[in-house]
Amino acid sequence: MAKVSGRVWSPVITPFGRDMIPDTSLFVNQCQWLTSHGVGLAPFGTNSEANSLSVKEKQCLLAALVEAGVDPIKVLPGTGHCNVDDTVTLTKDALLLGCSGVLMLPPFYYKGVSDEGLFRFYSDVINSIGDDRLRIYLYHIPQVAHIPLSLALIERLRKAFPNAIVGIKDSGGDWEHTKELIKCFGDDGFHVFAGSEKFLLDTLREGGAGCISPTANINPAPIAELAVSWEGNNADLQQQNLNTLRSLFEQYPMIPAMKAATAHYSGLADWRRVRPPLVELNEAGETALIEELRALGFTMNGL
Amino acid sequence: MAKVSGRVWSPVITPFGRDMIPDTSLFVNQCQWLTSHGVGLAPFGTNSEANSLSVKEKQCLLAALVEAGVDPIKVLPGTGHCNVDDTVTLTKDALLLGCSGVLMLPPFYYKGVSDEGLFRFYSDVINSIGDDRLRIYLYHIPQVAHIPLSLALIERLRKAFPNAIVGIKDSGGDWEHTKELIKCFGDDGFHVFAGSEKFLLDTLREGGAGCISPTANINPAPIAELAVSWEGNNADLQQQNLNTLRSLFEQYPMIPAMKAATAHYSGLADWRRVRPPLVELNEAGETALIEELRALGFTMNGL
Repeated sequence: MAKVSGRVWSPVITPFGRDMIPDTSLFVNQCQWLTSHGVGLAPFGTNSEANSLSVKEKQCLLAALVEAGVDPIKVLPGTGHCNVDDTVTLTKDALLLGCSGVLMLPPFYYKGVSDEGLFRFYSDVINSIGDDRLRIYLYHIPQVAHIPLSLALIERLRKAFPNAIVGIKDSGGDWEHTKELIKCFGDDGFHVFAGSEKFLLDTLREGGAGCISPTANINPAPIAELAVSWEGNNADLQQQNLNTLRSLFEQYPMIPAMKAATAHYSGLADWRRVRPPLVELNEAGETALIEELRALGFTMNGL
Repeated sequence: MAKVSGRVWSPVITPFGRDMIPDTSLFVNQCQWLTSHGVGLAPFGTNSEANSLSVKEKQCLLAALVEAGVDPIKVLPGTGHCNVDDTVTLTKDALLLGCSGVLMLPPFYYKGVSDEGLFRFYSDVINSIGDDRLRIYLYHIPQVAHIPLSLALIERLRKAFPNAIVGIKDSGGDWEHTKELIKCFGDDGFHVFAGSEKFLLDTLREGGAGCISPTANINPAPIAELAVSWEGNNADLQQQNLNTLRSLFEQYPMIPAMKAATAHYSGLADWRRVRPPLVELNEAGETALIEELRALGFTMNGL
């Protein structure tokens, strides 16, 4: 694994067929569409419904992606599970397939756990894998996992595993926290990614790495463009435009809304399906969303 | 599967060897010790560190238990996972082995999900299994799963699957809520179990089924005795004694404290081990716990 080079990554939404089994071919097509629009692939993120998939299903999708010719350097899969074994299994696959790195949730069932316990979890994973090429991006998403990653824990992990612990995704939605992460850790090559493109310009100006954002599934090219031209005169306007679309999606349940939009613009109704406990948008919700997207002149080119 | 008949169940603590692999033989011994003290077995509960085990590990432990001659009618394993597939896999095993039923966590990663989404999750599990013998006990543990099970959801599930949805464990720790569950659903054979023996007498007096409690790992016989003699003159005093021991354990992190006590009274140091993200009691904590237990004249007979 090399450290990731892309600035914008998408937790790829997962398509399900009529039998609710992942549709591998549609998944691969979607990934190719995303990379062709300048976005890296972070499959098996929260917005991929990763935790509604079995380890086996994730292994199959990841293998299919690389077999289909997608450059693994553009793939940063989510591999964190509640237990060490499953985390090791999927992370090893990512390593063998040549992925850029892995994005790793903390174990998220037991609550109120100590930094010592979380340190041991990551240590066990890293030691079990025992491969110098391993590159882990931590994943801070306290509003879902309810397991915040403290600055002290990050520092301890970096000191113990300087080659393996190379970055973090901050999905907490609090820019001050992302800024603090960049201030504390960003100056010596530790990659801090924001969890939303709303913070992309601020993150890059502060010295952060970029963003790993669900709405990169919907709006990849304009987000990727800002990550290229962020030092240009037009950057603030570009950011404003990204925010408009992002805010629209934030009014809806994010995953069903992204899938409804993808279904609408691709003409493939299969995209609407979500696995329980999620529920697809109802007809009124989808009609309202599509109407608002139309009013913005939004398209998904080539989907 | 028949409906469970026991009133007291223990989410069996899981022993780990030096290699942190579950120690099957020690697990089977512990289960036999518990049943010999009148307590049913609810392996793979929260207090079993179930979510720090892989599906495969749970399958192996469950099979070993029945192979060792433990009556499967006394076994009510936890089988709920975040995804339908894993939940179905382990539940099918429990069914084939002849277990009394299964205790099923809701999918616990995605937060703020709707009753409709949770209904679909349980429906998918039940329909995938497609076996009239299936008996599911719902598992309400909002402080850990962060997915409360509403009265409306329970009612809907019972109406749709009257044979499969047969009870609930309420681990919320709020007696008023347990009472409400018994009032709403207890009168026609729906089993409401409290999540602590602190509520055992109240639960039985109210018409509930009993308790599924972690401290039944430590104090099985006295809890089981109250469930037998709860209509006797001595019941309030028995309950008071149970509460004293329970309150002591509640001052410590529950799982490490139960394992420390089990290690101490069995003389088997292996019992101390917990999997990350949990951490065992430190020496001072263990010394204090054992001292307090000694002051109460506590023993674990025959362990």
